[in-house]
Amino acid sequence: MKIAIYPGSFDPITCGHLDIIKRASKIFDKLIITVLENNAKVNSSLFSVDERMEMLKLAVDEIENVEVAMFSGLLVDFAEQVNAGYIIKGLRAVSDFDYEFQMAVANRDLNGKIETLLLPASKEYMFLSSSIVKEVGKLGGNLQNLIPEKIIDIVKMKLGGNL
Amino acid sequence: MKIAIYPGSFDPITCGHLDIIKRASKIFDKLIITVLENNAKVNSSLFSVDERMEMLKLAVDEIENVEVAMFSGLLVDFAEQVNAGYIIKGLRAVSDFDYEFQMAVANRDLNGKIETLLLPASKEYMFLSSSIVKEVGKLGGNLQNLIPEKIIDIVKMKLGGNL
Amino acid sequence: MKIAIYPGSFDPITCGHLDIIKRASKIFDKLIITVLENNAKVNSSLFSVDERMEMLKLAVDEIENVEVAMFSGLLVDFAEQVNAGYIIKGLRAVSDFDYEFQMAVANRDLNGKIETLLLPASKEYMFLSSSIVKEVGKLGGNLQNLIPEKIIDIVKMKLGGNL
Amino acid sequence: MKIAIYPGSFDPITCGHLDIIKRASKIFDKLIITVLENNAKVNSSLFSVDERMEMLKLAVDEIENVEVAMFSGLLVDFAEQVNAGYIIKGLRAVSDFDYEFQMAVANRDLNGKIETLLLPASKEYMFLSSSIVKEVGKLGGNLQNLIPEKIIDIVKMKLGGNL
Amino acid sequence: MKIAIYPGSFDPITCGHLDIIKRASKIFDKLIITVLENNAKVNSSLFSVDERMEMLKLAVDEIENVEVAMFSGLLVDFAEQVNAGYIIKGLRAVSDFDYEFQMAVANRDLNGKIETLLLPASKEYMFLSSSIVKEVGKLGGNLQNLIPEKIIDIVKMKLGGNL
Amino acid sequence: MKIAIYPGSFDPITCGHLDIIKRASKIFDKLIITVLENNAKVNSSLFSVDERMEMLKLAVDEIENVEVAMFSGLLVDFAEQVNAGYIIKGLRAVSDFDYEFQMAVANRDLNGKIETLLLPASKEYMFLSSSIVKEVGKLGGNLQNLIPEKIIDIVKMKLGGNL
Repeated sequence: MKIAIYPGSFDPITCGHLDIIKRASKIFDKLIITVLENNAKVNSSLFSVDERMEMLKLAVDEIENVEVAMFSGLLVDFAEQVNAGYIIKGLRAVSDFDYEFQMAVANRDLNGKIETLLLPASKEYMFLSSSIVKEVGKLGGNLQNLIPEKIIDIVKMKLGGNL
Repeated sequence: MKIAIYPGSFDPITCGHLDIIKRASKIFDKLIITVLENNAKVNSSLFSVDERMEMLKLAVDEIENVEVAMFSGLLVDFAEQVNAGYIIKGLRAVSDFDYEFQMAVANRDLNGKIETLLLPASKEYMFLSSSIVKEVGKLGGNLQNLIPEKIIDIVKMKLGGNL
Repeated sequence: MKIAIYPGSFDPITCGHLDIIKRASKIFDKLIITVLENNAKVNSSLFSVDERMEMLKLAVDEIENVEVAMFSGLLVDFAEQVNAGYIIKGLRAVSDFDYEFQMAVANRDLNGKIETLLLPASKEYMFLSSSIVKEVGKLGGNLQNLIPEKIIDIVKMKLGGNL
Repeated sequence: MKIAIYPGSFDPITCGHLDIIKRASKIFDKLIITVLENNAKVNSSLFSVDERMEMLKLAVDEIENVEVAMFSGLLVDFAEQVNAGYIIKGLRAVSDFDYEFQMAVANRDLNGKIETLLLPASKEYMFLSSSIVKEVGKLGGNLQNLIPEKIIDIVKMKLGGNL
Repeated sequence: MKIAIYPGSFDPITCGHLDIIKRASKIFDKLIITVLENNAKVNSSLFSVDERMEMLKLAVDEIENVEVAMFSGLLVDFAEQVNAGYIIKGLRAVSDFDYEFQMAVANRDLNGKIETLLLPASKEYMFLSSSIVKEVGKLGGNLQNLIPEKIIDIVKMKLGGNL
Repeated sequence: MKIAIYPGSFDPITCGHLDIIKRASKIFDKLIITVLENNAKVNSSLFSVDERMEMLKLAVDEIENVEVAMFSGLLVDFAEQVNAGYIIKGLRAVSDFDYEFQMAVANRDLNGKIETLLLPASKEYMFLSSSIVKEVGKLGGNLQNLIPEKIIDIVKMKLGGNL
C-alpha cells in the first residue's frame, strides 16, 4: 500500500490545498494530511491546531482515502511511524520553490528512504495562499473560490471576532 | 480623468518611492499615494501612520497632481471609492517580483476593472528599500540620496530617539 | 493624447498578447502594436513579418484605438517618431522578468523620456507563449484558447505545410 | 497498475537522470523513459535518437520495471497511448523551474487527467546537466560520476570523433 | 596584508559557515569573523552574542589566521576600523541571492573602497542554514554533519533547555 | 603571488567587464583575462577571437597587472597552467546567477583547489551585456558608456560592415 503525507500549516485550508489533496488522493492508496504543530510560529497562526484540523476534516470528508492528523516531531519520523514513503507538496509559480527545495533536501538528509514529490498548483490557484485569504477576509473581501465552501462561515466568524 | 493610486507602507518614503511618484504623476491626471494602515504589521513599522503621511506630504508638496491619503480596507475598494482605475507599483530588480505579482493577481480577482501597472525602478534606486534606510540610519550612516532631503531631519530624530 | 507602443515578435500572436492589447487599449488613447523586424532572429521565426502583421490585424480589427506597425530601428526611436511616451510589456509569472527588466533599463538609458510599463498577464495566460503555441500546433494539439479564433486556420496551415 | 513516463532529451543520459530513474521506478509499477524526437532541436543534439536510446538501455538494463521508448507527437498523447497517468520530471536547484512549470501547466491544459510530478534532484546531481557533460567531455575532462559507467566509452568516442 | 571580514548571525555556526571560513582563510592573510549584534532581531536569535562567539571560537580554533569579533555599527565602518578591504559572503543555491545582492550594493554605496566577494557554497552545504539546524535540533534530529562536531553538545543543551 | 583568471566571451568587452577588471586587479597580484575560444558558439559570436583579444588589450593597456590570454581547453586546466588559484566572475542582478552557479560547482568538481569568486556588478552596469551592446550598436544607438571609449570605432565599423 502506497501511503503519502501532505504536511502544512493549513491556517486555514485554501481551495489550492484542497485541489492538491484531491489530485494526490488519486495517486496514492492513502493520503494523510498532517497539520504542523509548530511551537515557534504559535503566535503567528490565526487558528489553533484543533480549529485547523476541524476545518480540514470538514473540507475533505467526502474523499475516502484521506485522513487528517497532527504531528509535532520530525516530519520524516512521523512519515515512518505511519508507514508513509512519500511527502507531497504543492508548488506554486512563485514563492514556494526555495523553501520547498530546502526542506526536500533536508528531509532526504534525515531519511533517504522518504521521497518528496512536488505537484504543480493548478493555474487558478497558482497565486493563492493562506496569508492572502486572511488578508482578504480581515478586510471584508469575498472568500468564495478562495477557501472551501464548508469552512467559509468558520473563517468569517474568526476574522470578525478577531478585529 | 485617469486616476491612479500608489499604495505602500512608506516607512519612511525613500528616494526610490519619490522617483516612482514623479514618473507616475506624469502618466496619470491624478496620483493618490495611499498609506496602508496595516494592523497586522503595526508593531513592525517604525513610524506611525500620521508620521508617514506627514513625511510623504513634505516630500511631494511641489508636485501638483499628487495627493496623500490613508486607507484601511481592501485596496480595490479604496480605488473604486476615489474613482481610480489603476494601481501603480514600483518593481526593483530583486525581492519585489513575487509579492507584487501575487498582490496584482489577488486584486484582479477581487475587482477585474482595476489594473495594476508595474513601473521598473530607476537604476540608481534598484536596491533601495525602507528597511535598508532604517538599518543605515540606526547605525549612523549617511541618509543623503537614500531619502528625500526634506525628511532627513525627521528620520534622524526618530532613529536617534529610538535607540 | 497618450500614445503607447506594444512591441513584440508575435510569432504568432497568442490569446495572452490579445488580452494585454485589450487591457492596454483602455489605458491609452492610442496603442500601436509594433512588430519587431529582427534580422538576427530571422531564421528562428516561423512566420514572416508580413504574416505576423496580417494575423495581428485580423485579431485586433474590432478594437478601435489600436494600430499595427513594423519597426526596424531602435525601439525608443520608433516611439519618438510616433509620439509614443510609453512602452507596454506583458509580464508572465516566470521567464519574462529578467529580459523585460534588462530591456526596460536599456531603453531608459537610451531615452529617459519614454517609460516602460509592465502589465501582469491574466491568470489564464500566465504560462502561454508563442513557443508553446508552435510546439503544440506542430504536434497536432488543440490551439483553441491558445491563439485568437480568427488566426487558427492560418497557423494550422503554416504548421502543416512546414513539416 | 500505475504507469509513469519520464521524458527528456537524454543527450546523453547523466548520473542525475539515472538517479531520478532509480527513485521513480520505486514509486510506480512501470516507468517508461521517453526520448523526445525533437525535430526543431535536431541540429543541436550531439547524439542521434538511436544512440540516445541505446545508451539509456545500457544504463537501465538492470532495473526491472523500466522501459525505453521514443515518441514524436504530443507528450500527453503518448502518455494516454501507453496508459500512463503520470509524467515524472527531475527538478534541479536552478534553471529547470521555469521551463518545467510552463510545460506542466501546458500539459494539464492539453490533458487534465495526466499529472506531472516533480522530483527534486539529489544533492550531488543538483548542478549536473547533459550540456555540462558535453562541455567537459569535449575538453578532455573526467566524465566519471557525471555519466553512467557503462556509457563512458560511447560518449568519449563520439566526442573525440566530433572534434 | 589583505584582510577580509566574514559577517553573519551564526546562530549557531553551521558546517556550511565553517566551510566558507576554511576556504576564505586561504584567500586572505587574515579573516575576521564578525558576529552581528543585531538589536532588531534580538528576540529571534536563539543564542546570545556571547554564546555565538564562544561557539565560533571553538569551531575555528585550529585555523591560524582567523579571528572572531563582535560589531554593532555599520559593517563598512567596522571593516575600515580593522583595515579590512573585503567582505566575504557565502552564496547558496537559493534564498541568499536577493538579500546578499542588496547588502553588497548598499555597502558599496556607503563605502566604495570595500569590495564584497561572494563565495559559492560547497555542494554538500548548498541547502544548509542555521534555521534548519535549529528546526532539526528542536525536534530531536541528528545534528552530525550539520554543525561542527565541537559545538554539538552546546547546541543540544540549549535546544533541550529551551523546550 | 595570488593570480586570478577572469574568463569570458568578451564579444565585445563592455564597460561592465572593464569595471570588474579594474576592481579585481586590485584584489590579486596578477589578473589574466581569458578569452574563451568556444567552437560550439563560433557562429553566434560577432567578433573573431583575435578581434576580441585586440579590443581587450586596448581597453586594459593602462592597468599594470592585467594580461590577456586565449584558452581552448578546460578552464581549470588553464588555471593550473598559469598558476592561478582563483576564477573571478561578475554577477549581475539578473540572468547570470544560474549559469555562474552551475559553472562554479562544475569547476569545483573538476578541480577542488581552484576557487570561484563572484563580484557583484556595479549598480550602473547591472543590466549591461555584450548582447545589448550589439543590439544597440546594430540599430545605430549611442555606444558611449556601454563599451570602453577606445574600442567604440572598432565596434561601430564591424556592426556597420555587418549589415
